Amino acid sequence: MPSSLDIAIVGATGLVGELLVELLEERHFPVGTLHLLGSGEAIGHALPFKGRNLRVRDLDAFDFAQVRLVFLAGEATRAAALDARLTAAGCSVVDLSGGLDPATLTWVVAEANGERLVDLTPPLRIGNPCAPAILLAAALAPLCPLLSLQRVTVTACLAVSSRGQEGVGELARQTAELLNARPLEPRVFGGQMAFNLLGMVDTADGEGHGCLERRVHDELRALLGLPGLEVAVTCIQVPVFFGDSLSVSVLTGEAPDLAQVRARLADAEGLELAEGDDCPSVVGDAVGQDVIHVGRLRGGLHDPRELNLWIASDNVRKGAALNAVRSAELLIKHYL
Amino acid sequence: MPSSLDIAIVGATGLVGELLVELLEERHFPVGTLHLLGSGEAIGHALPFKGRNLRVRDLDAFDFAQVRLVFLAGEATRAAALDARLTAAGCSVVDLSGGLDPATLTWVVAEANGERLVDLTPPLRIGNPCAPAILLAAALAPLCPLLSLQRVTVTACLAVSSRGQEGVGELARQTAELLNARPLEPRVFGGQMAFNLLGMVDTADGEGHGCLERRVHDELRALLGLPGLEVAVTCIQVPVFFGDSLSVSVLTGEAPDLAQVRARLADAEGLELAEGDDCPSVVGDAVGQDVIHVGRLRGGLHDPRELNLWIASDNVRKGAALNAVRSAELLIKHYL
Repeated sequence: MPSSLDIAIVGATGLVGELLVELLEERHFPVGTLHLLGSGEAIGHALPFKGRNLRVRDLDAFDFAQVRLVFLAGEATRAAALDARLTAAGCSVVDLSGGLDPATLTWVVAEANGERLVDLTPPLRIGNPCAPAILLAAALAPLCPLLSLQRVTVTACLAVSSRGQEGVGELARQTAELLNARPLEPRVFGGQMAFNLLGMVDTADGEGHGCLERRVHDELRALLGLPGLEVAVTCIQVPVFFGDSLSVSVLTGEAPDLAQVRARLADAEGLELAEGDDCPSVVGDAVGQDVIHVGRLRGGLHDPRELNLWIASDNVRKGAALNAVRSAELLIKHYL
Repeated sequence: MPSSLDIAIVGATGLVGELLVELLEERHFPVGTLHLLGSGEAIGHALPFKGRNLRVRDLDAFDFAQVRLVFLAGEATRAAALDARLTAAGCSVVDLSGGLDPATLTWVVAEANGERLVDLTPPLRIGNPCAPAILLAAALAPLCPLLSLQRVTVTACLAVSSRGQEGVGELARQTAELLNARPLEPRVFGGQMAFNLLGMVDTADGEGHGCLERRVHDELRALLGLPGLEVAVTCIQVPVFFGDSLSVSVLTGEAPDLAQVRARLADAEGLELAEGDDCPSVVGDAVGQDVIHVGRLRGGLHDPRELNLWIASDNVRKGAALNAVRSAELLIKHYL
């Protein structure tokens, strides 16, 4: 058995791609050769990895048969266009782009359903769920043995970094323009983002649902193994640089014992449950952290079957790159 | 019968108080003498009204027997302390402060339950509901004849102006400090407000619910006349100067006909229903407007009994001052 794995990262210069490189080093992932891939202006850009500078190479010229594992970050359309090459090369893939056909992927959040990877045979096609689904699955999975979850209603407040560096730059630019009383011209988002909320993060389908909202619904059901779970989801864009916040209301089959629920969440892997009246927020608590912060755990004002909570987490780290690396850590047991 | 009414406004120099003065003029309210009242630094401050400058006088020295109607804006504790004087003077009161005993008030949102004022005998004690309850009641009341509402789950995203001028100043100050890389010291809010969300807007009771969250629950039930309605509510503070945004998910007794729901909301008084995929936002659509903007009307992703919508409205105007003036317009029919 080899002691390391050759790996490629597609979209290495985006917010998520750069963090993938950092996390592979930080977590001592058994990397043999690491290939950073990109296209256009990204080619030639260098990223530090284990004391060296690795240059981003042209994705189109790369032979994926050189690697066993590919992280697909960056644009969904580009990832979709690579699918045939990846399949022909026989690599395992962790798709962070949302570009591969969801029906061909196994959705994984290590804390929620990591054991699903044990019995599969490589090459594996792992789907990295969207950030709200990762956070919800990690927070709700520990409750599944205790409660019969029937309905999850969530408002997911997404940071502008969910749109990459472009989103971050746009909020900074708009804020400065407004504070200096200069006219504002929205570019990345559908309207003014500074000091405003947008009630929609992508485009609506014929029934009015956003693409990301459908992903949260489908992926949460798959991750929790609850195909009948009702999931009502609204994704909104908020003027926050980093960190997603989720307002969650859960209906259960019978009245939950709040002390038991609290104990489960306090013990759960990857979660940090706030004590007493503390309410975690993305700035100050969650950004840059590996854990998901959970707070405001409370029952209903009237209905004993209701459970409410607030989730704050780093969308780029916990909601994307770290989850992918954790899936890869489970996956490599098949190779090493 | 007189043709006008002598009126006092307590807390006239706050955001809501100043707008009350503006709206009384703008809506040609039949004002006889208008007394602006305040305490401390507010005394002596002048506000324009019908071409004159009215000075704020000392609340403590005022004889409420001079007026028939009092708008109570400003701090809840001050309003509570005035209750005995108001009762002794026999004035009708519209309480915008939340300070009077809720059990003694009739909650009114003109579009939802204005007819409740018809059969009452003055002096009346009218409660101006909290902004999220006003917006929810106005948006959901038109649906009550059509649907059996069973549960409303709402995340109310409150602008910093819900904390008055102090909240507005704090967000501006923090934003400028951060953009200039100066250290940030939170004063008004419990943490950093700029580029952050706070999952709690006041302090939690023993069960973890905020005071405002209980108000939304209780007041919405009263306004819709649905004492059995389940209301799950989370109020959060967002880095927006003006305008509240509500993410709302409703469960109904049977599957709603979305075309009928759309038609009802499109015809409803005080609402502006967005067409097609347009999603209204507070900046650009709602702030400064008398109407409540409703968008993203859609069913459930799976459950046919689910109805989702997004509400954006001016919290100071529609969510406070305008609603109070509209209640007063109904109330004065008892006097004039």
